[in-house]
Amino acid sequence: MSESPQLPNVSDLTLEEKAALTSGADFWTTASVERAGVPSIMMTDGPHGLRKQSGGSDHLGLSASVPATCFPPAVGLSATFDPDLAERVGEALGTESAIEDVAVILGPGINIKRSPLCGRNFEYMSEDPIVAGAMGAGLVQGIQSKGVGSSLKHFAANNQETDRLRVSSDVDPRPLREIYLRGFERVVKSAQPWTVMCSYNRVNGVLASEDPFLLTEVLRDDWGFEGLVVSDWGAVSNRVAGVRAGLDLEMPSSNGRTPAEIVAAVRAGELEEAELDAVVQRVLDLVGRSLTRPAVDGPLDVEAHHTLAREVAGRSIVLLKNDDGFLPLSSGTKVAVVGTFAETPRYQGAGSSQINPTRLDTGLEEIRALADGEVAFAQGYTVDGSGDAEALRAEAVAIAGEAEKVVVFLGVPAHEESEGYDREHIDLPAAQLELLDAVLEVNPNVVVTLSNGGGVDLPFADRVPAILEGWLLGQAGGGGTADVLYGVLNPSGKLAETIPLRLSDTPAFGNFPGENGHARYGEGLLVGYRWYDAKGLDVRFPFGHGLSYTTFDIGDASASVDADGDVVVTVTVTNTGAVAGREVVQAYTSLPGSSVQRPPRELKAFRSVALEPNETKEVTLTLSRAELAYWDIRVDSWIVESGTYTVEVGASSRDLRTSATVQIDGDRVQLPITLESSFDEVLADPNAGPLLQAALDESMGDDDAGMLKMLANFPVGRMDGFPLPRTEMVKIVEKAQQS
Amino acid sequence: MSESPQLPNVSDLTLEEKAALTSGADFWTTASVERAGVPSIMMTDGPHGLRKQSGGSDHLGLSASVPATCFPPAVGLSATFDPDLAERVGEALGTESAIEDVAVILGPGINIKRSPLCGRNFEYMSEDPIVAGAMGAGLVQGIQSKGVGSSLKHFAANNQETDRLRVSSDVDPRPLREIYLRGFERVVKSAQPWTVMCSYNRVNGVLASEDPFLLTEVLRDDWGFEGLVVSDWGAVSNRVAGVRAGLDLEMPSSNGRTPAEIVAAVRAGELEEAELDAVVQRVLDLVGRSLTRPAVDGPLDVEAHHTLAREVAGRSIVLLKNDDGFLPLSSGTKVAVVGTFAETPRYQGAGSSQINPTRLDTGLEEIRALADGEVAFAQGYTVDGSGDAEALRAEAVAIAGEAEKVVVFLGVPAHEESEGYDREHIDLPAAQLELLDAVLEVNPNVVVTLSNGGGVDLPFADRVPAILEGWLLGQAGGGGTADVLYGVLNPSGKLAETIPLRLSDTPAFGNFPGENGHARYGEGLLVGYRWYDAKGLDVRFPFGHGLSYTTFDIGDASASVDADGDVVVTVTVTNTGAVAGREVVQAYTSLPGSSVQRPPRELKAFRSVALEPNETKEVTLTLSRAELAYWDIRVDSWIVESGTYTVEVGASSRDLRTSATVQIDGDRVQLPITLESSFDEVLADPNAGPLLQAALDESMGDDDAGMLKMLANFPVGRMDGFPLPRTEMVKIVEKAQQS
Repeated sequence: MSESPQLPNVSDLTLEEKAALTSGADFWTTASVERAGVPSIMMTDGPHGLRKQSGGSDHLGLSASVPATCFPPAVGLSATFDPDLAERVGEALGTESAIEDVAVILGPGINIKRSPLCGRNFEYMSEDPIVAGAMGAGLVQGIQSKGVGSSLKHFAANNQETDRLRVSSDVDPRPLREIYLRGFERVVKSAQPWTVMCSYNRVNGVLASEDPFLLTEVLRDDWGFEGLVVSDWGAVSNRVAGVRAGLDLEMPSSNGRTPAEIVAAVRAGELEEAELDAVVQRVLDLVGRSLTRPAVDGPLDVEAHHTLAREVAGRSIVLLKNDDGFLPLSSGTKVAVVGTFAETPRYQGAGSSQINPTRLDTGLEEIRALADGEVAFAQGYTVDGSGDAEALRAEAVAIAGEAEKVVVFLGVPAHEESEGYDREHIDLPAAQLELLDAVLEVNPNVVVTLSNGGGVDLPFADRVPAILEGWLLGQAGGGGTADVLYGVLNPSGKLAETIPLRLSDTPAFGNFPGENGHARYGEGLLVGYRWYDAKGLDVRFPFGHGLSYTTFDIGDASASVDADGDVVVTVTVTNTGAVAGREVVQAYTSLPGSSVQRPPRELKAFRSVALEPNETKEVTLTLSRAELAYWDIRVDSWIVESGTYTVEVGASSRDLRTSATVQIDGDRVQLPITLESSFDEVLADPNAGPLLQAALDESMGDDDAGMLKMLANFPVGRMDGFPLPRTEMVKIVEKAQQS
Repeated sequence: MSESPQLPNVSDLTLEEKAALTSGADFWTTASVERAGVPSIMMTDGPHGLRKQSGGSDHLGLSASVPATCFPPAVGLSATFDPDLAERVGEALGTESAIEDVAVILGPGINIKRSPLCGRNFEYMSEDPIVAGAMGAGLVQGIQSKGVGSSLKHFAANNQETDRLRVSSDVDPRPLREIYLRGFERVVKSAQPWTVMCSYNRVNGVLASEDPFLLTEVLRDDWGFEGLVVSDWGAVSNRVAGVRAGLDLEMPSSNGRTPAEIVAAVRAGELEEAELDAVVQRVLDLVGRSLTRPAVDGPLDVEAHHTLAREVAGRSIVLLKNDDGFLPLSSGTKVAVVGTFAETPRYQGAGSSQINPTRLDTGLEEIRALADGEVAFAQGYTVDGSGDAEALRAEAVAIAGEAEKVVVFLGVPAHEESEGYDREHIDLPAAQLELLDAVLEVNPNVVVTLSNGGGVDLPFADRVPAILEGWLLGQAGGGGTADVLYGVLNPSGKLAETIPLRLSDTPAFGNFPGENGHARYGEGLLVGYRWYDAKGLDVRFPFGHGLSYTTFDIGDASASVDADGDVVVTVTVTNTGAVAGREVVQAYTSLPGSSVQRPPRELKAFRSVALEPNETKEVTLTLSRAELAYWDIRVDSWIVESGTYTVEVGASSRDLRTSATVQIDGDRVQLPITLESSFDEVLADPNAGPLLQAALDESMGDDDAGMLKMLANFPVGRMDGFPLPRTEMVKIVEKAQQS
C-alpha cells in the first residue's frame, strides 16, 4: 500500500537500515534512511490539541510547546454525543498539525472509564464502548481528512495509571471483546486510523507491546487494520518480541540499542527476516502516506479555532439539574460569582496531553460580558488550600447574600487528575464544600458549575436548584459556560459516564487498581450503567442524562430488520418547549431469556438532533446486526443469538420513553456431542437425543424424575452403569458424531 | 505408613493388581486383591448421618439406606460455632459407621458459601473459612476418634451445582488461598482426615481430579497431607492424568476400563510406575488404617443419638429477632401453630446426603408436648401449591385470631434445594408470604420459624416481633425448635452466613453461576461479610449475629503476642441476664494501611462460652500468626505483614464491643532490583536508591516534582535518556544486584 513512489522497497534496504526504521530517531520523529530516500516524520502528543514541543523533548509536559488551540478534552467532547462535532474538532486538529508539519497526532484515546478513579479519565470518552467508538471515529475521520494521521490509543485494556507500565489487566474474553475492545474495533473498521498505539500495560499477563493476540490476531486479522502500530512512549520491553507480535514502530528512540538487538536476532535465526520486513513495510507505508499531505500554510487562524472551541465547550456541558427553570440566567439578574476556578479556570488535565493554549477565557470575564450590570466576584477558596479559608468564605458569603443568584465554581484541583497516577477518592475538596454550604445558608439560589476530569461525588445535589457539569472544557470553557448560563446556547450534553452515589457503589470498587502487578476485571461485563442497572442500584445521575432549556417528546418507536440484517429503529422527536435545542436520542437493547449473561440494557445507537420550537423530526437509528452479537467463548467468535430483542429508546439510560421488539434470526452454534457432553445436551441433540431417551426409558423407573434433574448436568461418559453402561453411551455418542 | 502388617508391600503386587487398586470394585467399595490379602473396604455418603445403601447402588439417593441418625446438616451445625459440639456429632457418626462396618464416611463438606444460590449450601458450613475449617476439623476429629475415616470434601473451589462436573472456577491466587483453600488447610493441618475428596469442577481450567497443583503441590507438599485422595463419584475424566496429579482412588468402579488404561500407559512409558506405586501405597495405607478400627457391636443406641441430635438442633437455631422478649413462650400461653412444615418437617436436603432417619420429630408434636393446654394447628399452605390456598389461609387466620401468640412455620420446598442444581432466587414461596400477611392482619404476635438450607429473603422482618432461623435441623429438629420456643434451651446459634437485603446485593451476583464452562470469582477476597463491609452495604442480618434470652457483657479486650508469635486476645464475658446461656465471642482483625487489599475485618477466632446468670469468664482467643498472613503473589508464599493490627471483639460482625491493637513484626519480602523495577522501587532500595537519587539530583531541575510523581511507576530501563541515559540505569541496577 505504499502510496509514495519515491520511497524504496523493503528489499532495497539493508538489514541494519530496516532494523533502524523500527525505532524512533529521537523523542518525536521516526528514523530516516538518507541513502534510500526515507525521510523522518514527526508525531506529537495531544488528543484535544497539538503539543508540539519547541524545546527539549522530555515528553511529560514540562518543556514549552508551540501554542495550539486547546479544545475540550475527551471527557468534555464525548458529552456532546455528537460524532459530527468530533469530526469538526478533528479537522481543526488536522489543520493545526499540517501547519506545524506534524505527520501524526497521538490520539484519540478511547479507553473505557472502568473506574472514576483512573487518573487519565479526562483523556477518555466514556464508560460505554459505543459512545467511545463513535466519538473516536469522528475525531479520526476529521484529523485524517487533512492528510494527517491519527493514533488510536491506548490499545488495549489500559484503564488505570497505577503501575501502568507493568500491571496486567486480567480480563475475561467476553468483557475484553464486548467492552474493552469494542470501541477500538468500531474505530478501526469505520475510520481506519493511520496508526494504533499499543498501551503500556499487560493484558492477561502479556505486555501489549509484545502481544501477537492483540496486535496481529485481533487488530489485523479480525478487524482488518491496515495501518501501523506504534508503541506508547516507553512501552517496549523486549523489542524483538514486539516485532514478532506486530509492533511496527518503537517510540521514542532506543539510541540504536534495539535495532542492534533486531539485527542480532535475525542473524541468530531467532527472528524471521520476513517478520521484520512486514514491520518495515508498514513504517514505509506510514511515511509514504504522510508525504501525500497537502501543504497548509500558516499562520493558524486562532480566532476561528477559538470560536469552534467555544462552541464545543458549550456543547460539552451537561445540565444535571435545573429546578423550576432556575437557568438560564437573564442578563438583568443580579449575579454573584464565587469560586477561584471562575478566575483561574481548570480546563485540561496534566501529563502528555497538556496543551499550551493560544488564548484562555475565564468564566468570570465571559459572564460579565453577558450580564447586564455589575457582577460581584469572590474567590471563596484557594485550590491549594493556602490563604485564610474563613476570610475567603466570609467574602463570598457577603456578595452571595446581596445577589439574586449565585454561580459557584467548584472543581477538582489539577494535581489530583493527571496521567501517571490515579485518584484516591472522588470527593471535592472540603474547603469547597464548606464554602458552598456557607453560601447556601445566605442564599439558596445557587447554580454550581463543576470543573473536573473525572466524576465527583455531589453530596449537595439535593440542596441546590441547578448544577452544570462542566468537565474540562479547554481554552474557551469560560465562554462556553457563560453561553450556557445565559441561554446563548441551550445545553445538550449528556453523561457519558454514570455519576454514582458513592465510590463504593462503583463496579470496579474492590478490584481497582489491583496490586502486585495484577488488576482483576472482576465486574466482567457489568461496567458503568450495565452494573448499576444489573444491581438495581440508585445513582446520583444516570448514564445518558442531561437536561435542556426546552422539552422534548419522543414518540412511539418502531423497529424492523433491513436487507442487511441490521435493526432500523424509527422514532419522532418533537421540541415541545419554547426555545431551540438538541436532544440526544438513545437506543438500548436487551434480550430477555438470553442463553448468556446480558446487562439489563446496552446502548447500541444514539443521535444528537437539533430542533426548533414545535419542530418534529423523524429519527432513524441503525443498530448493526454485529452490535447485537455476544462473544461466544465456546467457539471464540461473535454470535448473534436468535430471539425477540427489546429496543428501548429514550433521553437517558433511566429515562426510557418508548420501546419496540424485533425478532432476530441468529447464528447457529452447533457443538459436537462427546462423552463429556451432559445428559441434557445429549437429550437436546437431534440425532443423539432420541437414542438416549429410548435407552433411559428402558432402564429407569417412572419415579426417577428427581434423579434425572440431578443427572442433567452429568457428562454421559463419566460413570459406568449409572444409569447406563458406558458402552451404550459410547455407541450413542458415536452415532451422533457420524450424522 | 502402612499400619497393618498383613497387607502386602506395593512391590509384591503385579502391575495389573496395582492398577486395579486405583479404582473402586463397585459403587461403594474399594477393589480387593485376594491373592495378596488386600481386602475391600466400604465408603458411604453422609456428612450429617450415615447413608449406607442396603439395596442397589444408584448413588443419588433413590435406593433405601440403612436407618441412621439424621443430625442437623452442616448449615445447622455450623451455626453453633462450637467445634466441640461438632466433635461430639463426629463421634456419633463414627460409632454408627463402625457398627455398619463402614471404613470411611464421606464428609465433612466445607466449601465456602459463595452465593446463597448454591443448591448444596445446606451441606456446607459458612461463608467464612475459619468457621468452616474449625467446624470441619471438629467433625473429622470426632469421626476418626472411632477408627473411622472421614473424607474432607469437595476439594476445591466447588461452590455451585450448575455445570458442576465441567465448570471452571476461575479464581485468583489470593482468594483461592485465603478464602477457598484456607478452611481445607486448617482441617488438614489440625485433624489429618484419612481422605480428601477431589471435587467435580475445574479450578482455573484444570479438572480437580487431574490437578497436580491442588492434589500434590498444595495438599501434600504445602500442607503435609498424609492421607488418600479419592475422586468424587464421577469426577474422573482422564484416569492416567489423575494418577500423575496425585488422585489415589477413583470411585465408583470403571469396571476395569481405567485400570487397563493405567496398565497400558505404564507399558507405553507414558506413566512412571513409581507414580502408580505412590498412589497404590496410599490405597494400601487407607485399607490398613481401616483394619485397625476397634469393633463396635450394634445395635445402634437410637435413643441416645436422637437425644444428641435434639441438643444439636436446638443449638443450631439462630434467634434472629426477639422484640420485647416475645420469646420464650411460657407453657401457659395460648398458642396457635400454622404452617405445614410444623407437621411435615423439612429437615435435610436432597441428593447424596439424604439420610433414612431412625425417627422423625415434628415441631407440632413437640410444641404440644411442652405447652400447657391445647395447641391449635392449621396447615396454612401446601408445599407443592396444591389444594385450595384461600381455604387453607382462612383456616389459619381463624385459629390465629383466637390465639395469644402464633408460631408460623415457613420454609423452602425441598425440590428447590438439592445437590445437582442451584437455586434461581432466594424467595420464600408466595403462598407462604401471603399466609403470613393474612395471619399478621388478625394477630401481630407472630414468631416465624424458618426451615431452609440456604438463606432466604425476609421481607417481613420488620413486621414480626420474633424470627427463628431454623435452617435444616435433622430428625430431632421438631424437638430442638420446641425447646428454643419454650426456653428449655436458650438459643445461642449465630449466622455463619450473612442474610442480605436482596439477592442483587450478594457478592457473586452477576458472576454466579457463570456460563459456557467458566465461573469467574470476580469478587475476589470480598466473599460474604467481607463484601458487605467493604461496600458499606446494609444487610438484613449480619454474619455472626444471633440473639439469646439473656444478655452478655463483653469487657475490654487486651491483645499481645506470645512466644510462638501468635496473638493472644483476652476478654471477660459476663451473663448479665436472668437465665443461663451461651455467647459466641468473635475476634476480627484488620490492618489499616496494609500494602495489599484487606477486607475491613476478617474473623480469626471465636469461642462459644456457656455462662450462668451473673457468671463472668475470662475468654482467651488465640489468633495464630499464620492466620494473619496474606498470600503474596510476587513470591507465591504466605506473608505476614509488619504493622499495627486491630483486633475487634464482639457478638457479631456488626456488633463489635471492644478492640485492641497489637504490633506485629512481619516477614520481609525482598524483591530483586532490575531494569523493570520502577523509579519508586529503586529509590526505596537501600543500595540503589541513593545512587539513583544522586543521578536524578544532577540531571533534573528543582521544579521537576510533578514529573517525578508521574515518573514514579516507570520502569527505570524503559526509556533511554528519560530522564537518565539507560547505561547509567544499567550501572545502578547492577550495583544493587551485587550488594
